Amino acid sequence: MSVSSRRRIGVGVLGCGNVGSALVGLLEEQRTVIAKRTGLELDVVRVAVRSASRDRNVVLADGVLTTDPASVVSDPGVDVVVELIGGIEPARELVSRALKLGKPVVTANKELLANYGADLYAAADTAGVDLLFEAAVGGGIPLIRPLRESLAAEPVRRVMGIVNGTTNYILSQMTEHGTGYHDALADAQSLGYAERDPTADVEGFDAGAKASIIATVAFGARVLAGSVYREGISGIGPDDIAHAQRLGYVIKLLAIAEQVGQVEGKPELAVRVHPAMVPGDHPLASVRDSFNAVFIEGDAVGELMLYGRGAGGRPTASAVLGDLIDAAGNRQRGTWTPIGTLGEAVICPIDDLESEYYINMEVLDRPGVLAAVAGVFGRHGVSIRSMEQEGLGDQARLVFITHEATERDVQATLGDLRELESVRGVPGLLRVISR
Amino acid sequence: MSVSSRRRIGVGVLGCGNVGSALVGLLEEQRTVIAKRTGLELDVVRVAVRSASRDRNVVLADGVLTTDPASVVSDPGVDVVVELIGGIEPARELVSRALKLGKPVVTANKELLANYGADLYAAADTAGVDLLFEAAVGGGIPLIRPLRESLAAEPVRRVMGIVNGTTNYILSQMTEHGTGYHDALADAQSLGYAERDPTADVEGFDAGAKASIIATVAFGARVLAGSVYREGISGIGPDDIAHAQRLGYVIKLLAIAEQVGQVEGKPELAVRVHPAMVPGDHPLASVRDSFNAVFIEGDAVGELMLYGRGAGGRPTASAVLGDLIDAAGNRQRGTWTPIGTLGEAVICPIDDLESEYYINMEVLDRPGVLAAVAGVFGRHGVSIRSMEQEGLGDQARLVFITHEATERDVQATLGDLRELESVRGVPGLLRVISR
Repeated sequence: MSVSSRRRIGVGVLGCGNVGSALVGLLEEQRTVIAKRTGLELDVVRVAVRSASRDRNVVLADGVLTTDPASVVSDPGVDVVVELIGGIEPARELVSRALKLGKPVVTANKELLANYGADLYAAADTAGVDLLFEAAVGGGIPLIRPLRESLAAEPVRRVMGIVNGTTNYILSQMTEHGTGYHDALADAQSLGYAERDPTADVEGFDAGAKASIIATVAFGARVLAGSVYREGISGIGPDDIAHAQRLGYVIKLLAIAEQVGQVEGKPELAVRVHPAMVPGDHPLASVRDSFNAVFIEGDAVGELMLYGRGAGGRPTASAVLGDLIDAAGNRQRGTWTPIGTLGEAVICPIDDLESEYYINMEVLDRPGVLAAVAGVFGRHGVSIRSMEQEGLGDQARLVFITHEATERDVQATLGDLRELESVRGVPGLLRVISR
Repeated sequence: MSVSSRRRIGVGVLGCGNVGSALVGLLEEQRTVIAKRTGLELDVVRVAVRSASRDRNVVLADGVLTTDPASVVSDPGVDVVVELIGGIEPARELVSRALKLGKPVVTANKELLANYGADLYAAADTAGVDLLFEAAVGGGIPLIRPLRESLAAEPVRRVMGIVNGTTNYILSQMTEHGTGYHDALADAQSLGYAERDPTADVEGFDAGAKASIIATVAFGARVLAGSVYREGISGIGPDDIAHAQRLGYVIKLLAIAEQVGQVEGKPELAVRVHPAMVPGDHPLASVRDSFNAVFIEGDAVGELMLYGRGAGGRPTASAVLGDLIDAAGNRQRGTWTPIGTLGEAVICPIDDLESEYYINMEVLDRPGVLAAVAGVFGRHGVSIRSMEQEGLGDQARLVFITHEATERDVQATLGDLRELESVRGVPGLLRVISR
C-alpha cells in the first residue's frame, strides 16, 4: 500500500459566507503543501450560495457557483461535502442526503449537531463515511478531535469551556475596564463580535448548543441541546465583577459538562451554561478578550486546556480544512473514523447540582441582620465559607461564599432571604468553580 | 460497513515501568468503556520487562510477562506493539521489526524519533501501518495529533513549547519564591521531578529532542535532534529572574520551531531550545509548576495553546491509550493514518536568528560608561529599546533590551563589550519573545 500516488478529490461547499470564502482561499493558498504532504489534490468543484450575485472575495471558475445546494450534494464530481450553511433546515436534509450517498461530510454547524447529532452520527457510521465537525465548537481550536480520539477512553470527569467569544469579550471589558454590561455589549457590536440581536450569545444559547456537543463527545453519550441548563450574562453587573475581583475570582460564562454519578450503568451528567466565578489562578481565568478555551479534567490525563480563536473566518476555516484533509484521505483509502456507539446518559437536574455559591444581597445596615441571614442559611443546611459586609447605610450589602451545597437548598435559602424584613434585595447567585 | 461487531486486539507492551504499568492498569479500568464505545477488546497478551521479578503494581496473567522483547514483537497473538523502553537500542530494532511485520506501533520514545524518526515514518507508510507517538512530546497533552491532522495544511509560522516539566518547575520556584537555581534543582530532585543527574533536563537535551519532533510534524520536514540549537537553564541566576520580573517578563525554557524563510522551495527553519524572556501577558507566561504547554502560531488559525501534564505515568499512559485505540481501530478496518511525505528543510544557523535580546552587564559606576557601551551597540547596528541602570558602585549594572537584531551582531557586540575597560563583566544574554 502506498499513498504516494496523487489523487484528485472533488469538494462541494454549501454556503460561502465568512468561513466558506476563507476556506476556498486557504485551499488555494495551501494547494501545493497539501499535495506534497498528503498526495491529495483538493478541488473545489461546486459551491452553493444563497445569491449568486454577491461579491465574496474569492475567484471561482465558471460553473462552480450555484444557488441549488441539493445539486452540489448529488453532483457525481463531489466526493466530500462541506456544510457551512448553519441552522437546521435545509442543512439537515442536505447532510443526511450526502451521508446516504456515501459522501463524507465536514460541518461547522453546532445547532444541527446539538439537535440532530445522534441521528447524523448513526447515519455516518451506517454509511461508513466520516462526519467531522471540529469547527462546530471552539472555532480553530483542536477540541473535537482530541476528545474523540486522544481521549476516546479517558475517564473524563469534567469539561469546562469558554466557548462563546462575544460574552468573553464583554466580560473581559467589564473586568478590565470597569465597563458596564450595556456599554461592553455595544462595544462588541461595533467591533462585529456581537450580532445586532445578541440574544443567542448573551443568553447562552450558542454556548448551550456547544455544551451538548462537548458532552456527547466527551462522555460518548447522547445529550441534546434541550437537556442543557442555561443562564446568560445579561444579569451580571459591575458590582458582581468588583466583588469577584476582590475575592480573587474572575466571572466567565462557562459551558460545563460533568459526570456527577452513575445511574443503572449510565453516566449521570450535569450539562449547563451559566456565568461562574473562576479562581484567579485557574488557567481559564487568564483567557481574555474574544479567545476561547476548554479545560478538561480526567482521572488519568489530569488537567488539560486547549486555547485559541473560537470564531472568525480564517481560524474556523483552518479547522474545516483539517477535517477536510482527513475526510479526503480516508475516502481515498476507503475508510473512515467511526464516531462509535453513543450510550444513554441520565441528565442531572440543576436542582441536584452541588456547587459553591456566591450570593450578594442588599441589607438594612443595623444590628442583628447577619444573625437573621445566617439563621436562614443554617435552616437550609447551607454552610458559609466567607462573608463580607460592603458599604454602609443605604449601600449596605452582604456578600457570601458558601461551602458546597445543592442548588435546591441554595434556591430555597434565597427564597426565604427575600422574605426577611432586613433584606432589601437578593439580586441572585453565581456558582463558584472550585479546583 | 459497520464497526458494531466486537473484535479482540492483542496488545504487546515493551517495557513496564511507570508508564507501562499505568497503561496496563488504565486498559483494565476502561475495558468496558472501550468495548462499548469502539467495539474493540484490547487484551494485553505479552509484556516485556527487564527483570521478571520486580514488583510493578499490576497483575498479569501467567505467561504474559517475558524478558525477551523480540518474542513479544514476533508473537502472532500480538496485533499492536506499544514501545515504552526508551532510548535508541534495542527500541529502534524492535520498532522496525514490528513495522516490517505489518504491526502498528505506539511509542513514547522521543529520543528514538528525534534521531531515527524519518526512517521509521517511512517504514510505517511503506508497510501501511500506524506509527503513533502522541506521548513522546508533552505527556498527556494532545499535541502530535492536532499538529499532524487538525493542522495538516495550516500555514504554521512558529511553535513555542514549554516541553520539559523539570526545568519549568525549577524556573517557577525561582520566579515565585526567589529560590536560587541549585536549591530549586535540589527541591525538584527531592520531589522526583528531576533525576540525580539532571543534565538531560537542565541542559535542554530532552527539550531539544522534542523540538526536533515538533518541527518535523509542524512543518512536514525532516529535522534531526542534531540540528537543534540548544542552551539550558543552569546559567540563569536570581538577578536575571528579578530583572525579567521588573521588566514585565517571565523566564521560561522554550523549545521553538519557526519558519524564518524559504530557500529553493524548502522551508527555512530555526529550531532551538533556550531560556527566553516571555512577556507577562503571554499565555505561556502563566504555565507554572511542572505543567507543559505548546503555543502555536499559524497564518489561518491564529494563536493556539495546548496545556497539560507533560509527564507522569497516568497522563502519559492516557496519551498512549488514545493512540492504541486509534491504531487498533485502524487495524480492524484495515487502514492507517499516513504520516505523509516529509520534505527537506534548510536549518537556519543560530547566528542568523533575528530576535530581541536582554543583556545584563556589570559596569564601573562612573560617567561616560553608558556612552562607551552604547557606542559598541551602535557600531554593530544593534539598536536599544530600553536601558536601566541598577545598583551603585560595586553593584552597578546596566540592563538592556534591544530591538530586533541578528544573533551574530549581538554576539559581536558582547565580544567588544567584554573588551571595554569600564565593563567588568557580561554574564550573557537572553532572547526576548515578542508578540
